[in-house]
Amino acid sequence: MTIAYIAQSAGVSVPTVSKVINGRFGVAADTRLRVQAVLNRYGYRKSSPARRSNMIELVFDELTHMWGIEVIRGVEQVAREHRLGVVLTEFGPQRGAIRYWIDDTLARRPDCVVTVAQLTDDERNQLRAQGIPFVVFDPTVELPDDVPFVGATNWNGGRSATRHLIDLGHRRIAIIAGPELVLCCQARLDGYRSATEAAGLRVDAEFVVRAPLTQEGGYAAALALLRRPERPTAIFASNDLQALGVYQAARTIGLCIPADLSVVGFDDLPIAALVDPPMTTIHQPLTEMAVAAAELALALGRGGEVRQAGVELATTLTVRQSTAPPAG
Amino acid sequence: MTIAYIAQSAGVSVPTVSKVINGRFGVAADTRLRVQAVLNRYGYRKSSPARRSNMIELVFDELTHMWGIEVIRGVEQVAREHRLGVVLTEFGPQRGAIRYWIDDTLARRPDCVVTVAQLTDDERNQLRAQGIPFVVFDPTVELPDDVPFVGATNWNGGRSATRHLIDLGHRRIAIIAGPELVLCCQARLDGYRSATEAAGLRVDAEFVVRAPLTQEGGYAAALALLRRPERPTAIFASNDLQALGVYQAARTIGLCIPADLSVVGFDDLPIAALVDPPMTTIHQPLTEMAVAAAELALALGRGGEVRQAGVELATTLTVRQSTAPPAG
Repeated sequence: MTIAYIAQSAGVSVPTVSKVINGRFGVAADTRLRVQAVLNRYGYRKSSPARRSNMIELVFDELTHMWGIEVIRGVEQVAREHRLGVVLTEFGPQRGAIRYWIDDTLARRPDCVVTVAQLTDDERNQLRAQGIPFVVFDPTVELPDDVPFVGATNWNGGRSATRHLIDLGHRRIAIIAGPELVLCCQARLDGYRSATEAAGLRVDAEFVVRAPLTQEGGYAAALALLRRPERPTAIFASNDLQALGVYQAARTIGLCIPADLSVVGFDDLPIAALVDPPMTTIHQPLTEMAVAAAELALALGRGGEVRQAGVELATTLTVRQSTAPPAG
Repeated sequence: MTIAYIAQSAGVSVPTVSKVINGRFGVAADTRLRVQAVLNRYGYRKSSPARRSNMIELVFDELTHMWGIEVIRGVEQVAREHRLGVVLTEFGPQRGAIRYWIDDTLARRPDCVVTVAQLTDDERNQLRAQGIPFVVFDPTVELPDDVPFVGATNWNGGRSATRHLIDLGHRRIAIIAGPELVLCCQARLDGYRSATEAAGLRVDAEFVVRAPLTQEGGYAAALALLRRPERPTAIFASNDLQALGVYQAARTIGLCIPADLSVVGFDDLPIAALVDPPMTTIHQPLTEMAVAAAELALALGRGGEVRQAGVELATTLTVRQSTAPPAG
């Protein structure tokens, strides 16, 4: 199987095929996909595996204050164990302007990629074509079955949070759900529904509200809930920031947490233990998830047997002081 | 000037000199320093400047939850502007185990290094020898005059915080100072002293206490201060985490912020705006400092004229709701 033959089959020049094989610039996206399809059809593989640079690429859409560090620390830990460098990229507010990322990454020849960002199909295909394994950290959208990922048991977490409130004696439990399109939020909401129904209670549609995953979002949603004539005695927020918004709304209205209102968050960010009262929340093992993602990506790169290319690590309920039995 | 001559002068073999010049492994630290000294004496420079890899190295001792992200985002911003990769290293808890960092960094041939970590003299010398410029971010210890850095105006910040409390009418103002050996803490303390004396007040030695830069540190120090018979009406903490400890101590004793006690922090971490009451604090422009550090390091690498290789960016007082005039 020669490159000339591939070129002829794909209807392009030999240099174009060579560029595609080596992940170089200057090939239109559709041409590259066509050439790659032919290469795949004939099972073409570079005769010698490309030299690796002892690097892990770690990619974020936007680094958030509360969340990014835990993920980075997990990947750094694995990097130290294997003496690898970590190339960190934040796409930033103008994702479209960072089209060069895939070219630069292919040129850097990393051992693997761990991505918190959403890669495009084209980017994923190019990584595959170059034999660079990648793992998606906590996917927010549904992925093709063959994309390896590490997530958290969001559904279980939603269930535990809700059951904790039910066990305390709450019956009017509201949920501030996140955006419909964010997969983990949907799982948390379904966990809430499942626990409610398992306890023989009815899910009250008025007690299910959607809000962005921010403090402001939580504040507005909680205000609306707490101003109802029949207000909830407990609120399960879809993340800790929303829960902080609930704290703020409770103060605004003059309700005391947990005496008048119980609150459960999700994530267990460092801030959750520092606020007043310290927050009951669902712990996401972000650092361990990042360790698992980096280890999985490296294992894929070394061609080791990987039994399961998608895993969810367990969330746990962390009870602090924002939850209590409902008042009389 | 031949390598053979250098080798003879340094009393080592030619391959050893070559290794030192090219930043390779396998030379004992003292031998390397001796060879480097001879190279420097004869003004040896590699005939062609080493190829750069379009990378910035960013180094931390330990990534902290509250602080690291702001710095990383600043460097990422500069990296995007110049289409550079960022190699991020956290030395982690076992600094001694990461001796390989300098070797790997030299091998990666970065355009420059921005370091939040404390590099050893030997590491700095090796970077210099290879013509890789580096800038220290917010130095915590005194540095030789020729080491470029970007910091914040800590002394001014300490002064503003204290003057704000004096202007509100406070006279019994305590400071929770940080560790004596941390340079920025010393500057903040001196700013407190300066503002106190400028107002014609006396610095009360009993109101100057030292504590680690943690919430626990602030809590213990504040408890001791607030249990004095003549307790302070205001506390200036050396960072926001300590100030959160002061919040906690006030609750423990049953004091209300700001009615019974005013509190000022330092840093303006994202959390400062989220706590109850929102915290008055000194804003450190961490992201802008990181941008300045990365820009400076790149400029040094490009051999541009750099007027001033050490700068401090201005801190600003952010007044929120944890400060008020003293009661009665």
